[in-house]
Amino acid sequence: MTFDPRWDLVESDLFENMGHYESLFALANGYLGTRGATEEDYRERTPGTYLAGLFDAAPREVTELPNLPDWLRLEITLCGERFDLRQGDVLEYHRVLRLKEGVLERFVVWKSPLGRITRLRFSRFVSIANHHLAGLRCEIVPENYSGPIRVVSRLDGQVTNSGTQHLAPVEASTFAERGIYLISETYEQKHLVVQGASHHIQGQIESEGYANGPRRIDYWLESQGQEGRALILDKLVTTFSSRDLELQGSPLSQELVLDYAVRDNLQAQQVGFQGSLAEHVQAWEQRWEKADLAISGPDFDQLALRFALFHLMQMASWHDHRVSVAAKGLSGEGYRGHVFWDTEIFIFPFFLHVFPEVAQLQLRYRHHTLPGALRKAAENGYQGAMFPWESADTGDETTPTVGAIDFETKKPIPILSGRYQQHITADIAYAISRYLQVTGDREFLAQYGAEVVLLGARFWASRVEYNQTNDCYEIKAVMGPDEYKEKVDNNSYTNLLVQHHLRFARELLARPEHKQLWDKWGFSQEEGKKWGEIANKIFLPRQGYLLEQFDGFFELPEIDVLKYREHPGELQKVYSWREITQSQVLKQADVVMLLHLFPDAFSPAEKEANWAFYEPKTMHDSSLSAAIHSVVASDLGLEDQAYTYFQKACRIDLSDGLKNSAHGLHAASLGGLWQAAVHGFAGIRVQEGMLHINPRLPGAWSDLRCKVQVGEALLDVVITHEDVTLTVLEGRGRVTVQIGAHTFTLDQAAGSLSVRYEHVDS
Amino acid sequence: MTFDPRWDLVESDLFENMGHYESLFALANGYLGTRGATEEDYRERTPGTYLAGLFDAAPREVTELPNLPDWLRLEITLCGERFDLRQGDVLEYHRVLRLKEGVLERFVVWKSPLGRITRLRFSRFVSIANHHLAGLRCEIVPENYSGPIRVVSRLDGQVTNSGTQHLAPVEASTFAERGIYLISETYEQKHLVVQGASHHIQGQIESEGYANGPRRIDYWLESQGQEGRALILDKLVTTFSSRDLELQGSPLSQELVLDYAVRDNLQAQQVGFQGSLAEHVQAWEQRWEKADLAISGPDFDQLALRFALFHLMQMASWHDHRVSVAAKGLSGEGYRGHVFWDTEIFIFPFFLHVFPEVAQLQLRYRHHTLPGALRKAAENGYQGAMFPWESADTGDETTPTVGAIDFETKKPIPILSGRYQQHITADIAYAISRYLQVTGDREFLAQYGAEVVLLGARFWASRVEYNQTNDCYEIKAVMGPDEYKEKVDNNSYTNLLVQHHLRFARELLARPEHKQLWDKWGFSQEEGKKWGEIANKIFLPRQGYLLEQFDGFFELPEIDVLKYREHPGELQKVYSWREITQSQVLKQADVVMLLHLFPDAFSPAEKEANWAFYEPKTMHDSSLSAAIHSVVASDLGLEDQAYTYFQKACRIDLSDGLKNSAHGLHAASLGGLWQAAVHGFAGIRVQEGMLHINPRLPGAWSDLRCKVQVGEALLDVVITHEDVTLTVLEGRGRVTVQIGAHTFTLDQAAGSLSVRYEHVDS
Repeated sequence: MTFDPRWDLVESDLFENMGHYESLFALANGYLGTRGATEEDYRERTPGTYLAGLFDAAPREVTELPNLPDWLRLEITLCGERFDLRQGDVLEYHRVLRLKEGVLERFVVWKSPLGRITRLRFSRFVSIANHHLAGLRCEIVPENYSGPIRVVSRLDGQVTNSGTQHLAPVEASTFAERGIYLISETYEQKHLVVQGASHHIQGQIESEGYANGPRRIDYWLESQGQEGRALILDKLVTTFSSRDLELQGSPLSQELVLDYAVRDNLQAQQVGFQGSLAEHVQAWEQRWEKADLAISGPDFDQLALRFALFHLMQMASWHDHRVSVAAKGLSGEGYRGHVFWDTEIFIFPFFLHVFPEVAQLQLRYRHHTLPGALRKAAENGYQGAMFPWESADTGDETTPTVGAIDFETKKPIPILSGRYQQHITADIAYAISRYLQVTGDREFLAQYGAEVVLLGARFWASRVEYNQTNDCYEIKAVMGPDEYKEKVDNNSYTNLLVQHHLRFARELLARPEHKQLWDKWGFSQEEGKKWGEIANKIFLPRQGYLLEQFDGFFELPEIDVLKYREHPGELQKVYSWREITQSQVLKQADVVMLLHLFPDAFSPAEKEANWAFYEPKTMHDSSLSAAIHSVVASDLGLEDQAYTYFQKACRIDLSDGLKNSAHGLHAASLGGLWQAAVHGFAGIRVQEGMLHINPRLPGAWSDLRCKVQVGEALLDVVITHEDVTLTVLEGRGRVTVQIGAHTFTLDQAAGSLSVRYEHVDS
Repeated sequence: MTFDPRWDLVESDLFENMGHYESLFALANGYLGTRGATEEDYRERTPGTYLAGLFDAAPREVTELPNLPDWLRLEITLCGERFDLRQGDVLEYHRVLRLKEGVLERFVVWKSPLGRITRLRFSRFVSIANHHLAGLRCEIVPENYSGPIRVVSRLDGQVTNSGTQHLAPVEASTFAERGIYLISETYEQKHLVVQGASHHIQGQIESEGYANGPRRIDYWLESQGQEGRALILDKLVTTFSSRDLELQGSPLSQELVLDYAVRDNLQAQQVGFQGSLAEHVQAWEQRWEKADLAISGPDFDQLALRFALFHLMQMASWHDHRVSVAAKGLSGEGYRGHVFWDTEIFIFPFFLHVFPEVAQLQLRYRHHTLPGALRKAAENGYQGAMFPWESADTGDETTPTVGAIDFETKKPIPILSGRYQQHITADIAYAISRYLQVTGDREFLAQYGAEVVLLGARFWASRVEYNQTNDCYEIKAVMGPDEYKEKVDNNSYTNLLVQHHLRFARELLARPEHKQLWDKWGFSQEEGKKWGEIANKIFLPRQGYLLEQFDGFFELPEIDVLKYREHPGELQKVYSWREITQSQVLKQADVVMLLHLFPDAFSPAEKEANWAFYEPKTMHDSSLSAAIHSVVASDLGLEDQAYTYFQKACRIDLSDGLKNSAHGLHAASLGGLWQAAVHGFAGIRVQEGMLHINPRLPGAWSDLRCKVQVGEALLDVVITHEDVTLTVLEGRGRVTVQIGAHTFTLDQAAGSLSVRYEHVDS
């Protein structure tokens, strides 16, 4: 087995941190995701299979993505000895996620307790060519014996979400030759899920059959294993849900969902495992063609970037506007599959600049969930649309209200973000404005985007409070990005985003193509004027160059943050939660987020002052912090810090930097890595359809190559420490490019442009 | 560690058949039962904790006893190495269920992968002195090292019933020092369950604290382990449910249930683990004082008998008339905690003759569930009370309607017993008549028993069909005890039991103390007369001495049953299910049951003829068959067969004879073992308050000693191959005893009676 250190993520010890690798090795296609659990069962094993958008709420728990029946399960018995790496000796072991092909492989040479040596190879994919299809192959070669080999292949519905079962067992049976299926139904929402698994065997079958138990169905076979000869089992699994019918507008029908799953499975069987895999690999090739971000630099950096891009592409839906990217993608139970601001602010930019059609789906998700946002506003006594901090299928607020137990008070810790972290509505408007800047797609705005922005603006107008004394508008009682401060007044981040939102809304309101919304929602010129007034008069606390994170932050006592920040959990041991909420210590980027989101709104001196003040006060006790700090450090020309923060962000998942990757990947950090590389190191930004390139490549890298979509043009960008080389690959439009201090115009006919640059301080 | 082979059941390999031993080692007190799962977790581990009568139904599934949060869990880490018998070397291992004390102990010397040797001892009890209390002790002695020992003690609500979760997590927190609790609520019935666990440590605690996760709460401690010095952790667990409040007539209150659990726990902590254990052991001593069935004979026979008695006493409720003994007791998920005829016909006799007050509670359970039986009759278009084949908390029918998938038809196999196996109603009446015969307790009859019998008789009167041609009553479309025949007419067993039921009912109806029931239910002399007429004219198919199992049985083709019956599953491979239902092959005793239940109703020649015909046709593919065949063989003087069947019955659980003990013990077989010994070998029967003793001791036994309650007198009975010795231990009454052909009268003053006997053929 050979590995490419720039494309292949390798695990050498199954038991060292099983949950962590189950997340890293999750395979998904935006529709279905499956954690990288082993085929055979272990105590520590935490299988997870989820369908995007298929939510269900158990009594007394918030809605979550139900853990669907585990389709991976194989039980292998070799001459009566069960294949179990906890037993006997593991002579060779490698598991590798091949990012280029989207395939998870495992190679094992195992010596059983009785001395039988077997060579096993497992391959697995979740197809991006047909999102209903997944497959696994298991190859078994007895090395020093001949004798019976028994394989039980299972669909196992006994799995739960950490003990919560969402699915009723509806039906199980067989189809065609060696086909088994399970039909499940969620308890609350009555979503139907059908999973079908068919099997193809290379090798002599002595006997075979089916078995079933509670929530389980098995296909099993026995073969007379021969020394040196491979037995190969292919398992092709198709999954359909009643939500697929909804998407196509069909009425709910159990028969139809079953029929789809069976027919799709039979078709896949025709193509076979290898054929299906080849289609999948080819689809990945096409994706990478656009998405790859290649560097000449350390293998780790390259692998971390590709790991990020791979998972971003796996997490996003490529066909369904009813879902968006969850904070953990489809890689684990963490945050229950909910969508946060992580999507618009951290994840969305990659798609916006590389796959804008996918970015558009993410924005459409917010439009789709407007009814919930309208409800949330109304429930809280506001007007318009107040988007939920945590969003699931309807747009209603799904943030849990309590968390773990505080063993001091003996009560669960209240979770206040659902109540106070309101900037999400403005974050969504920000993303829509970015979409417009980069794509120029006003049709989307007219159909979906403007409605979200305008109803959000109406919410803010009802939310702000006028301060007569100072003739300004204030937003009191909010939580900013820094979650160490749970309820503050006039959070700079929130207020500035709201200002941007209101101005953007006013602009949109005035455009003729949005007049239909005036009729639908009763908007008026008056209302737009009011938004402009609020935006102009919104209070932004500051002292000279320094933005104040919120009212009174500068008066809080200081803490020696740097003493604690390399030792996670230390701060919390020395200071109580109350003290942390009352000191100058940040969990994550807050004002620094503004420097990132509005790079042109601050002078270099302002940026430096705020960085110098806030960076040393930040614990980075969130996955949302490091990559953003890298981007801003690049912008400020702090090359070492930019690279250090980049690597810190790389390690969040790859090295389990926050000790919680077992619950799922940190999607925002993965999106942040793309931003650190492209917005940060490459210095690529698009404003008003114009491409700006102002690179700051790390010393350890000699070049960076990526593709960026600007309007209708797809550009190939190669950056070295001296040159920027641009080629328009597709698209009829012309692109205006500013590199360093110079401006160029390019089109496809022009061929490549190569420009020597010098970094310009922003 | 020393073992008494006549009292101690020992396991030497944890992994050989883990589920089986979890059932064998289940501890229970009739209120709470917990499977013998290990404290540390393994892949194969199947923990189970159930509260008698606390049922809940998940959508699309029949009601069952929810698997409550696992209170056993300990995670032990020794110098960073997790205690795991799958790793390293097991130098010594014994697990022993001490039947005399009701204690499960485990003794392990474990060498870790890094060579650290540790001696561990676990003890566990489920208190019969206080049925809300259970406890476990873990003793850890480092043998060849010193270093940190970490123990995490958990209440784990992530467990399910084979994937079905019944409980919502309500609240978790801590109480007092080292106390943790979990509150759960069943989804359907909203039963509340509180489990509290407190901890006491002997050894130096370096640090300690609490942790929690989804459905889980932990107490943890770290200690500096020292070579040769023991660290001891005691965990005392109290359990209360809202059903306890119902029993005492209190309104539902979460606070009150929690308060009970905490207060009871604090009291237990005062007494301590050792003190609580001592109270429990003393209570077992008292129970064994009455219950023991001591033989001079092979250790295996003795152990098997005590194993049976131990579990029977564990399974039965000693205080709650709302519950009865389930087919698996409280030892596993098999049959979902439902109550069958197993209770009245197989289990009840032990209690009737030894603990009649417990037997009475079992009958009161049927009275308590009369509303469901009335509903079942009405739903099926009958009158009176039609008891359910499978009974849970209400008396409504809870037999599932389908079982496993038939892979020929691809459909689930219909389960017809809930529809056709109707003899249960007559079985209950039979048990009530036995209760009256043995105890003479007419007060119970007046309060509870008669109502059950009379309403059951009314059901039968509406159920039978009059055959004008033959002037007889028939019962068509039933399933008899032999479940290989799913729908037959005039099953001899059913019809004879119904005849007995109707005659008994007519008798009861006539008694003045039951006149209140006439008013309540509108009974009349007329109705009683009708019952008598039906009983007299009920059709009993027979040919000479031979009872016909049902109409047409004699015409069915024969199968060479003896060829298959030592090879479970063979018959099913050769013959289809349809063929089995259409041949002269029995799953279990059917006509032979009648020979057992009505020993005086058949002549020796009749008994012999029916035995000779049916016994060779019986597969014993049910746990209800072997012990009954032993009793009847004893009665027939077939000593070898009686002993062989006895031993076969012993092996059903002890040797996993039916390969399904992992799902729970076979309570009916355990009850049957007592009957095989006492009704069979000892030949003890009570008829009309008179004790009959007609022994047939196996050759391998030299004596048998037991106690029997007859009316108000408790008798000690010692039987050898020559003599019967009787002593009245308690009670003022006089007892008439027939030994062999002679009759004696005894009272407490009389001292012992020793009589030389000869077996009399019945």
